[in-house]
Amino acid sequence: MNFRIEKDTLGEVQVPADKLWGAQTERSRNNFKIGPDASMPFEIISAYATLKKAAAITNNNLGVLDSEKAKLIVQVCDEILHEKHNDQFPLVIWQTGSGTQTNMNVNEVIANRAQQLSNRKIGQDEPIIKANDDVNKSQSSNDTFPTAMHIAAYRKLVYHTIPALEKLLATFITKSEEFEDVIKIGRTHLMDATPLTLGQEFSGYSQLIQNGIVSLQKSLYSLSELALGGTAVGTGLNAPENFDIEVAKNIAEITQLPFITAPNKFEALSAHNAIVESHSALKQLAISLFKIANDIRLMGSGPRAGFGELLLPENEPGSSIMPGKVNPTQVEALTMVCSQIIGNDTTITFAASQGQFELNVYKPVIIANFLQSAELLGDACNSFNENCLKGIQPNEKRVIELLSNSLMLVTALNTKIGYYKSAEIAQKAHHENTTLKQAAVSLGYVTENEFDEWVNPKNMI
Amino acid sequence: MNFRIEKDTLGEVQVPADKLWGAQTERSRNNFKIGPDASMPFEIISAYATLKKAAAITNNNLGVLDSEKAKLIVQVCDEILHEKHNDQFPLVIWQTGSGTQTNMNVNEVIANRAQQLSNRKIGQDEPIIKANDDVNKSQSSNDTFPTAMHIAAYRKLVYHTIPALEKLLATFITKSEEFEDVIKIGRTHLMDATPLTLGQEFSGYSQLIQNGIVSLQKSLYSLSELALGGTAVGTGLNAPENFDIEVAKNIAEITQLPFITAPNKFEALSAHNAIVESHSALKQLAISLFKIANDIRLMGSGPRAGFGELLLPENEPGSSIMPGKVNPTQVEALTMVCSQIIGNDTTITFAASQGQFELNVYKPVIIANFLQSAELLGDACNSFNENCLKGIQPNEKRVIELLSNSLMLVTALNTKIGYYKSAEIAQKAHHENTTLKQAAVSLGYVTENEFDEWVNPKNMI
Amino acid sequence: MNFRIEKDTLGEVQVPADKLWGAQTERSRNNFKIGPDASMPFEIISAYATLKKAAAITNNNLGVLDSEKAKLIVQVCDEILHEKHNDQFPLVIWQTGSGTQTNMNVNEVIANRAQQLSNRKIGQDEPIIKANDDVNKSQSSNDTFPTAMHIAAYRKLVYHTIPALEKLLATFITKSEEFEDVIKIGRTHLMDATPLTLGQEFSGYSQLIQNGIVSLQKSLYSLSELALGGTAVGTGLNAPENFDIEVAKNIAEITQLPFITAPNKFEALSAHNAIVESHSALKQLAISLFKIANDIRLMGSGPRAGFGELLLPENEPGSSIMPGKVNPTQVEALTMVCSQIIGNDTTITFAASQGQFELNVYKPVIIANFLQSAELLGDACNSFNENCLKGIQPNEKRVIELLSNSLMLVTALNTKIGYYKSAEIAQKAHHENTTLKQAAVSLGYVTENEFDEWVNPKNMI
Amino acid sequence: MNFRIEKDTLGEVQVPADKLWGAQTERSRNNFKIGPDASMPFEIISAYATLKKAAAITNNNLGVLDSEKAKLIVQVCDEILHEKHNDQFPLVIWQTGSGTQTNMNVNEVIANRAQQLSNRKIGQDEPIIKANDDVNKSQSSNDTFPTAMHIAAYRKLVYHTIPALEKLLATFITKSEEFEDVIKIGRTHLMDATPLTLGQEFSGYSQLIQNGIVSLQKSLYSLSELALGGTAVGTGLNAPENFDIEVAKNIAEITQLPFITAPNKFEALSAHNAIVESHSALKQLAISLFKIANDIRLMGSGPRAGFGELLLPENEPGSSIMPGKVNPTQVEALTMVCSQIIGNDTTITFAASQGQFELNVYKPVIIANFLQSAELLGDACNSFNENCLKGIQPNEKRVIELLSNSLMLVTALNTKIGYYKSAEIAQKAHHENTTLKQAAVSLGYVTENEFDEWVNPKNMI
Repeated sequence: MNFRIEKDTLGEVQVPADKLWGAQTERSRNNFKIGPDASMPFEIISAYATLKKAAAITNNNLGVLDSEKAKLIVQVCDEILHEKHNDQFPLVIWQTGSGTQTNMNVNEVIANRAQQLSNRKIGQDEPIIKANDDVNKSQSSNDTFPTAMHIAAYRKLVYHTIPALEKLLATFITKSEEFEDVIKIGRTHLMDATPLTLGQEFSGYSQLIQNGIVSLQKSLYSLSELALGGTAVGTGLNAPENFDIEVAKNIAEITQLPFITAPNKFEALSAHNAIVESHSALKQLAISLFKIANDIRLMGSGPRAGFGELLLPENEPGSSIMPGKVNPTQVEALTMVCSQIIGNDTTITFAASQGQFELNVYKPVIIANFLQSAELLGDACNSFNENCLKGIQPNEKRVIELLSNSLMLVTALNTKIGYYKSAEIAQKAHHENTTLKQAAVSLGYVTENEFDEWVNPKNMI
Repeated sequence: MNFRIEKDTLGEVQVPADKLWGAQTERSRNNFKIGPDASMPFEIISAYATLKKAAAITNNNLGVLDSEKAKLIVQVCDEILHEKHNDQFPLVIWQTGSGTQTNMNVNEVIANRAQQLSNRKIGQDEPIIKANDDVNKSQSSNDTFPTAMHIAAYRKLVYHTIPALEKLLATFITKSEEFEDVIKIGRTHLMDATPLTLGQEFSGYSQLIQNGIVSLQKSLYSLSELALGGTAVGTGLNAPENFDIEVAKNIAEITQLPFITAPNKFEALSAHNAIVESHSALKQLAISLFKIANDIRLMGSGPRAGFGELLLPENEPGSSIMPGKVNPTQVEALTMVCSQIIGNDTTITFAASQGQFELNVYKPVIIANFLQSAELLGDACNSFNENCLKGIQPNEKRVIELLSNSLMLVTALNTKIGYYKSAEIAQKAHHENTTLKQAAVSLGYVTENEFDEWVNPKNMI
Repeated sequence: MNFRIEKDTLGEVQVPADKLWGAQTERSRNNFKIGPDASMPFEIISAYATLKKAAAITNNNLGVLDSEKAKLIVQVCDEILHEKHNDQFPLVIWQTGSGTQTNMNVNEVIANRAQQLSNRKIGQDEPIIKANDDVNKSQSSNDTFPTAMHIAAYRKLVYHTIPALEKLLATFITKSEEFEDVIKIGRTHLMDATPLTLGQEFSGYSQLIQNGIVSLQKSLYSLSELALGGTAVGTGLNAPENFDIEVAKNIAEITQLPFITAPNKFEALSAHNAIVESHSALKQLAISLFKIANDIRLMGSGPRAGFGELLLPENEPGSSIMPGKVNPTQVEALTMVCSQIIGNDTTITFAASQGQFELNVYKPVIIANFLQSAELLGDACNSFNENCLKGIQPNEKRVIELLSNSLMLVTALNTKIGYYKSAEIAQKAHHENTTLKQAAVSLGYVTENEFDEWVNPKNMI
Repeated sequence: MNFRIEKDTLGEVQVPADKLWGAQTERSRNNFKIGPDASMPFEIISAYATLKKAAAITNNNLGVLDSEKAKLIVQVCDEILHEKHNDQFPLVIWQTGSGTQTNMNVNEVIANRAQQLSNRKIGQDEPIIKANDDVNKSQSSNDTFPTAMHIAAYRKLVYHTIPALEKLLATFITKSEEFEDVIKIGRTHLMDATPLTLGQEFSGYSQLIQNGIVSLQKSLYSLSELALGGTAVGTGLNAPENFDIEVAKNIAEITQLPFITAPNKFEALSAHNAIVESHSALKQLAISLFKIANDIRLMGSGPRAGFGELLLPENEPGSSIMPGKVNPTQVEALTMVCSQIIGNDTTITFAASQGQFELNVYKPVIIANFLQSAELLGDACNSFNENCLKGIQPNEKRVIELLSNSLMLVTALNTKIGYYKSAEIAQKAHHENTTLKQAAVSLGYVTENEFDEWVNPKNMI
């Protein structure tokens, strides 16, 4: 392999000749061989390109960066955003906890690519743009990385996770209406209970998802607050006045999303409240989806020795040994994703609590877990929605059969003959394995006509 | 011990003669000897008394319960609320997951106490009020227990946790102002960084707590939604029309808190979204307080071999073996509480995800963990605030000494001579153990006058 | 209330006249009003009495404490162990993280009670025994508290948790044998699968519990290592030579348990590996019991609209509104306990990771969570065993019915006619709602005789 | 793209013509677009190739598979093990929870590659080997996937994680010896305490790591137990007698690792005890390494305004804005990895508790988290060891300075003049900012000579 020499303040480093990165990126590559290469999420690189562009424009507007340099920086950022340099970001999550090395990776790639665009030789000719002094002007890793975290998280939620949830919700609402006349037995403690409609059951699921979406949306405001302008420790040292407000405006304009500057930069560097809050909403959704998916799996169990109330789409053979078996595989993928998100919440909780003084140095692990949760949740919702939920149908014959046999229809008699006599009827029917009506009439508590009039599932929902 | 015979639908049970509870409470006492007695939080009993009172009034208003009975129920509920029957609720958290046994405990105590108030013999004379048919009228455990959870959680937050947090916040704001002129060294990665004021540092803490309070308040709306009226499975079977809306109004009037009926009762019985959401906010606060407390502990470390920037109140001898030692004990209590809350969040997450069909049967463990977190957080904030934070003072001599020696003041030169030359100065001073100024001047990059003008901590904050 | 004046190195404190504790206990009571009073587990007090007794004996043997003093200390410790001073330990978990205040509480009570036993006036006459110099001789909070943690944890496991688990295991083994001829349908993915016996299913549960017990027992060795003798930071300063080895021997003799001195005291003070390891085993058991309990709940679901394969004991009325309902309440209590233990593991994990330098200052929260888990697990196993498991019976009629209808018996044909043709048979029977045999024969893949010979559940287990 | 037609029991599927996989793999690819492609860890594929090879040999030995077929299967498995088909395994973690689709992916690739090796056309000529009937003979996904989990986990631990931990341990032991004469101040509660040597401090770290390795090794036995032979539900249906024992022997021979057959196959399919146990040991190590790394970060803090007792290697510039800054980046990577492992433990705990009846359907998420933890822990230990720990040196000047000033040296006087007078000395020196000796002598409690003789750090360690 060919190399060129790059320098930083600690000395010289050999860098692959065909790469745009510089000394600090290369040091990080060599010093942090932890897990798969290039694991730093691309969403962070992309958010960095966005903020570097906005910073260059703002620096130019505020008179601290000349227009030629600003133009070059913007041009390279646009190239990155168009995914022309995807192989230039080799660093891993498990690096310095401030993400400094990824910030420098971006700074170095921009500086060296600008050199190319200006027809100068990288590493030989005088740099037209300097990584630290120009690309990083008015910035620090300590304010850029949390800014990139918020941009990446916000985008992922509004363009991926929330739309997927809304599509899922729409299907649940549709199903809820579709099933509004399917009266079925209710179950509490997994035991037979009074009836409800399948539509009512699904309306509960809709409400759960709706609540989760609201929680997620409530967290967007916190994510919209950007640390940029705080520089090294939150004071904004070396950034021109109003840089924070102006750069947030520029990011808002570039992204067409309502980003604003954070009200307190000390908090914004040293803690990750907004990520914690927003991931709590993802966790809340994971909890809800787990419950919903589990219910659907239970209702679809069988086909002959389970609850058997729902028919799930048959997408693939379910077993390598049991011929003809079909399994609730989409439910399984979704619930596995939920368990991942629940664990990611522990990681984020732990990491977010460990800030010291002016900086929390668990930034990469926090955002990597957040983005994984947001992506998996969106993907799993889409997959479950398309490949399972939309095709779910009630097994009406089975639903009616289970309903008719239920002893808990006796509850309708409470207000007529009291709880105690009603219990006696249910117990008698249970132990003698008869119908409720038989037991009720034979005990003499109601007549046949009364029973038929009072115990009607249609009036119990 | 003397006993009397009580009955339920499964038969007779011996109950201590001096107790007001009935057969089902006694069965539960015998069947669930798990952990300390009477561990069901009293806040739940108290919330139950509130809702039973509201239900009696509502049942009477809606014409399904006569006025005499309603009056008696209200009277007993008021006695319970005035803590006159605290020894009548012996049940534990680890009972049926719907809390049915606690619901019946309350129903039984109300019925038997009403019997006393009517000068009838418990267990002998015809009951003036029946536990299931009257006290529990229009209700089920499945809607009353989650209603009690919301009432108890809401009250605990608004009367205990949030006020404690607000007092803590007020002190942080005061301290932040008090310390606004104390310029100190910043630290990132625990390493020396550019300066800021102690007031700025504390303003970050204020912001963190403020954010947490906002998250907690955002969750109150969800907690205000009550399941009552859903009865057994969410359909409202056996409750008169509009019972849900009216009973929520009555609860709101009794508590003077803005409770409303939940929009979807199926969700309200089968999941605990609101508790999950609200406890996530408690967890967020635990994360933030952990970070803050840890910083204060670090800044107070020493007195001679630590950071030594803060002087914490000396409340007690710190060591049984090391004479004269004083430790940051309030910090330790607070951070232990934070770790408890973080674990409670895992318990709640796990338990809340396990609902099946129409009911989540982890209600007692969920609310017990929630109330513990809310109580401990409030208590710990008060203790930390009164016994530590209010008395914290900067060790000004030490603060100035550390600031003056700092190599990171060199950052001010970036915009004058560039990042690279600045780095050279810092490295020279570090390795030769000189002042920055000596290194800067000896390298010839700045004059003494320039250095004094450009490198001034007061201009760097 | 009457008070007397007690002193410590920070000055004078008013203490209730009828209490044996001294100044430092009183300071802690006043400074840490967090959660319920006296929440420090009594097991810790009891372990402290054990180790103070052993220390007095060892100090006397090694010539640093005279016999009269040693005798008095031993006498008071025995009184504490006989629970004669239970109201003398008012402190909470949420105090200093080293447990120093509880150590001093014990030291003070012993010193003052010795004063009483010597007919001297507490707080007036010259103390016959000094809390720090005599009772705490050769000790520090930093080595006594972790020693008390190990003694308390070890005892709880061997006298409570493990015996309860072994009783539960014995019942599972008995049931497994009892059910060895009950052939039932298997289920994978909750869907019908090939058969097995109920006895085989229960043997899997036995194995799970057996594994958990082994993990717990493996952790006992780590718990047997005691920190005592490390004193303040692990060096053993102020303790006579061999104090660590001798005191461990004395503790072993007093407790009749195989305690030894820890090989490295620096580790033993600054971290809680053994507790982490042992609680991981409790967590493993919680995971296993959760799965087992959940299966039993599923198999007991119904009675008419569920799986209905098991009949669980009917211990109490299950519903306040649905007459005659019986629920798997013991399962619910057990699974709630499991979710608590799982959360406690997060608390312990978090707290155990936060040691700094020579001390981990989360000791009280760590041991409180450990002891809660160990106690609840033991109690819940006993309760579940006695009130549920022992009385479980198969619903044989239902079991046979579900088995006979199963389509997955077709798997037996794989080795005769191949997986593909077998699948065709199962699918045909499923979609046409016929028996397997009808489908198999009508497809012409097997004769009736072949089917009867090859597809026999008894040969499939 | 070119396609060929593949079939399974649900019908025809188009598969890319250049790929070896079949219908079921392709269905899974299309139905589970969740997260990045091919996320199923390659260690699982590799373990599958191992077990399929062993199964073919065993089937042949036991007379149920002819030698030609067995030879072909072995040949393809060896190709997979030599990584010749890495692009043939496109499936994701988030598929069916039994891993059936990955089992079929392997079965299909083996069958189709065997077709190629036999010069037959895939999808056209009669298959020489059938995916279900031959490659999967005597197996099910339900026993192969957990077997692959154990093989993959075992290998990862013994070839990667444990060796990395042992290298780290070796360095800690070396450092501990190297630093045995460096007397330094101890710290408890982060406050100055009695002295110890840096070597003693590092010996505590060695012990922690040693304990973790022992825990990990203790878990290997459980991992050595293989489910294979249990087939669909644990009964071993369709596997010849002794298949389980023989196939485990063959796996042991192929891998040269001590694998054996699991004693109870019902447990081995329906739960993941061994993985839970083993990951608990990884979590224990994460807890310990977190504490160790944090201590090193604290001791390295500064260079001028921190503890400053250790000098860490300067591997890269630490800041994009603060020139000359060097940070403890390896510590940060390691502690981020620890927080990931702690979260992964929550995911595994959650997922492992959710088995239902004969199968736990969270297998892929469980093993993916396990392998990530094991890999990251090993990598991070290696990185930290090589790039940080080996180069750590004490800053002796600073260490001596902090030691000499310490007030806690007063503890040596306890046994001479008692705890109370010693405390008075320390407090006087603290408040008057003098040396201990000055305070001691001026109080008249000791002479200068006594002080010099009694208070000597060298005698306090």
